[in-house]
Amino acid sequence: MSTLADIADIGTDPRRGGYSRHVFDDAERQLREWFVEQAQRRGLGVRTDANTNIWAWWGEPGDDAVVTGSHLDSVPGGGAFDGPLGVTSALQAIDILRARGFHPQRPFAVVVFAEEEGGRFGVPCLGSKLLTGQIDADRARALRDVDGNTFAEAMVAFGADPRRSGRDDAALRRIGQFVELHVEQGKGLVHQERPIAVADSILGHGRWRFRFRGQGNHAGATLIDDRRDPMLPAAQLVLAARRTAEASAGGRATVGSIVPNPGGTNVIASAVDVYLDARAPRRAREMVDELSARAAECAAEEGCEVDIAEESFGDTVHFDTVLRDRIRGVLDGAPALASGAGHDAGILAAERPSAMLFVRNPTGISHAPEEHVEDDDCQKGSLALADVLAELAG
Amino acid sequence: MSTLADIADIGTDPRRGGYSRHVFDDAERQLREWFVEQAQRRGLGVRTDANTNIWAWWGEPGDDAVVTGSHLDSVPGGGAFDGPLGVTSALQAIDILRARGFHPQRPFAVVVFAEEEGGRFGVPCLGSKLLTGQIDADRARALRDVDGNTFAEAMVAFGADPRRSGRDDAALRRIGQFVELHVEQGKGLVHQERPIAVADSILGHGRWRFRFRGQGNHAGATLIDDRRDPMLPAAQLVLAARRTAEASAGGRATVGSIVPNPGGTNVIASAVDVYLDARAPRRAREMVDELSARAAECAAEEGCEVDIAEESFGDTVHFDTVLRDRIRGVLDGAPALASGAGHDAGILAAERPSAMLFVRNPTGISHAPEEHVEDDDCQKGSLALADVLAELAG
Repeated sequence: MSTLADIADIGTDPRRGGYSRHVFDDAERQLREWFVEQAQRRGLGVRTDANTNIWAWWGEPGDDAVVTGSHLDSVPGGGAFDGPLGVTSALQAIDILRARGFHPQRPFAVVVFAEEEGGRFGVPCLGSKLLTGQIDADRARALRDVDGNTFAEAMVAFGADPRRSGRDDAALRRIGQFVELHVEQGKGLVHQERPIAVADSILGHGRWRFRFRGQGNHAGATLIDDRRDPMLPAAQLVLAARRTAEASAGGRATVGSIVPNPGGTNVIASAVDVYLDARAPRRAREMVDELSARAAECAAEEGCEVDIAEESFGDTVHFDTVLRDRIRGVLDGAPALASGAGHDAGILAAERPSAMLFVRNPTGISHAPEEHVEDDDCQKGSLALADVLAELAG
Repeated sequence: MSTLADIADIGTDPRRGGYSRHVFDDAERQLREWFVEQAQRRGLGVRTDANTNIWAWWGEPGDDAVVTGSHLDSVPGGGAFDGPLGVTSALQAIDILRARGFHPQRPFAVVVFAEEEGGRFGVPCLGSKLLTGQIDADRARALRDVDGNTFAEAMVAFGADPRRSGRDDAALRRIGQFVELHVEQGKGLVHQERPIAVADSILGHGRWRFRFRGQGNHAGATLIDDRRDPMLPAAQLVLAARRTAEASAGGRATVGSIVPNPGGTNVIASAVDVYLDARAPRRAREMVDELSARAAECAAEEGCEVDIAEESFGDTVHFDTVLRDRIRGVLDGAPALASGAGHDAGILAAERPSAMLFVRNPTGISHAPEEHVEDDDCQKGSLALADVLAELAG
C-alpha cells in the first residue's frame, strides 16, 4: 500500500507549519521520485510529458483511457491531503482492483499534474493548463518565481525542454475520462454525515496582482502631509475586497499575500504588491472591475498609482452530468457538491468528460495544517475510487 | 581621500533598488574591511569593541576623547548617504586637519556603530544601545533575524564573543564629546538655502510588532461568513495608524513591513505581522496605546486575536545646548534643525555631550535610492566637520 505516511516527512515547513512543496523544488522532486518508484513497483510504465506532468500506465498506453490522479505540490504551509490524497488513493485503487482480479478493458493511467497550486509561478493548474493550451506556452515560459527565475529556466534546471511545452493533442487524445479524488475543502460532507461526494461544479476563479507605487522615504523624517505611501491604498483594497465579496451572491475575495518593497520597518514603502484571489459563480471579473476602480481612487487620494495584472482566470466549470450521475449510481447516491476550490479536473473538463470525488474533511479547513481526513475515510475514498474506475474501465 | 564612490558597488540591491547592507552580511563585512583599510592607511589604530562597533584612533586611545563617526549599514533598499556619509566625512576631516598641520590636543577617534538601522535584528542603534546599556544584553543576544538566527549566533559567526556584549564603561569614558555628521532626511536646508545645519532634537521613536492570529484556510472554499482572516484587522491597523498620526501634534506612524503567514495567494493567512514605526515629540507611546486598543477591537470583530510587542522605544532627545551653540558659532550660525530620524548620537546623548551636523539633501528623500547629496555639499560637510573637530580637539 502507498499511503500519505510514506511522504509525511517530505517538504515540511517548520516556519509556516504544514508543507511547502513547490514545482521542481527539493521536496517536489522527492515526491516525484517517490511516485515513480511506487508506480514501477506496481509494474506501471512511467512517462513524464512535455509539460512535466507524470503518467503511469497500467498496461499499454492508448487513446480514450480511464485516467485518475491529482497533484503532489502544495500551497506554502499547506496541509497533507490537498493533492497527495488523490495520488495515494489512485495507487491504492489499483491495488484493490488487482486484489479483486480486475483487468481493465480500456487503457488506464494515473497522472500527477505539475504546479497545481501555482505556489511558485503564480498560475494555478499550470500543468493541466499547458496540456490543454488554456495558458499560452510563451506566457507560461516567461512566468517568474519570487527569485526572478522563469518557468522556462526552472524547466531546464529540472532537465525538461521548455520548447516542447504547450498544448499536447496526443496526450489529450489518450484521456477518455478523468476522475480526480480530492479532500473536501469545506464541511459539506460533515453536515450531511457522508464520507464521499461527487463534484457538481467549480467556482469561477482568478488571481490579480495590484501593484501600488508611491514614494519610498524615511518613516520618521517625512511629514504625514508629504507622504505618498502605497501601503494606504493597499490596506483599503484589502477591506474593499471583503465588502465586495459580502455584497456578491456566493462570491469570495481574499488577500493572502501582500509584499511591500523595500519592506523595512522604518521605511515608507515605494511600492506594495497586493495579490487578490477572487471567485464567484458568475461575476468574478465584475467584482474585480469594481475593486480596480476603487483601488485607482484610493491610490489617487494618496498621490500613488496602481497597475493591475490578471495572473489567471477561469469561468465556473459545470462537470459532465452524465458522468457525474453514472458515478453517483456506483456510489450509492453520493451527494453532489459544488467546489469553491479549483482543480485540474476543472481544467480538463473543457476537453474531456471529467469528474471528482470528495472525501470528508472533519475540520473543513484546507490550505492549512489543520486540513484532515480520518484513516477510515481515506480507505472509503480508495474503495469508492476503485469502484468508479472498475465501472469506467471494466 | 575616502569617498562614497569607493563603496558604491558594495551591497547594491537589484531587486529593491538602492543598497541593502545589514550587520554581518557580506556587504557589511566588506564595508568594515574597507573602513579598517582606510583607517590603517592613515596610521589610525583600529579596535573593534565588545559590541562590534569599530574605533579608529588618531594617536593613543584615551579618556575624554573627541569622537566622530556614524554607521555603514542601511535599511533594505536604502540610499547611499544615510550612515556612510558620516564615515567618509570623518576620514576626510582627518585628511583636511592633517593638511592644515593640525595636531589634536585630546584623544581623537572615528567610530562606526553596528546595526544602526535595525535592518536585520529589528532594534535600531543596536551597537550604541549595547554600548550604553540602553538595551539589556540578554535581550539583544536573543533578538532574531528573519531566518531565525539570534544576534548571539550572528556574533559568533562573525567571530565576536556574545558573552562580552553589553554596557562598556571603559569605552564610554573615552568619549568626551561625540559629533555625528549625517545626510538631512528632509528639506529643511533646501528651504533655508543653507548647506549645513546643527541638530536640535530627535523625535521620540519606537517600533512595535502587532501579530494578528486567525484561522488559515482555503481562499476559495471558505465562505465569507466562516472566515477569521487576520489580514482584515491588519489592514484596519494600517489605516488607523495614519488617522492617529494625523490627529497628533507632529506625530508620525508608518507601516512599512507587513508579513502574512503562510503568504500564499490562494490561502487565507493564519497570522499577519504588522510592524508599526511611531514617532512623536511627546506622545509616541500614547499613540500606540490608542492603536493597540483599536487593533484589539478590529481583531475581535473578525474572530482574531492580537499580540503586541514593543521592539524598541526611545523618548525625544534634546541635544546638549552648550555644545550645539559652540558648534553653531564655529559654523557661521548654521541653523538648528529637529530630526525626525533616530541616530546613534541620540543614544549617546544620554551619557555624553553629543551633537550632529546635517548636510543638505536636495530631494529631501531618505531610506530610498533617491536620497542625495551634491558633491559640493559633501565637501562643505567635511570642511565643517573638520572645523568643529579642530575647535573641540585643539
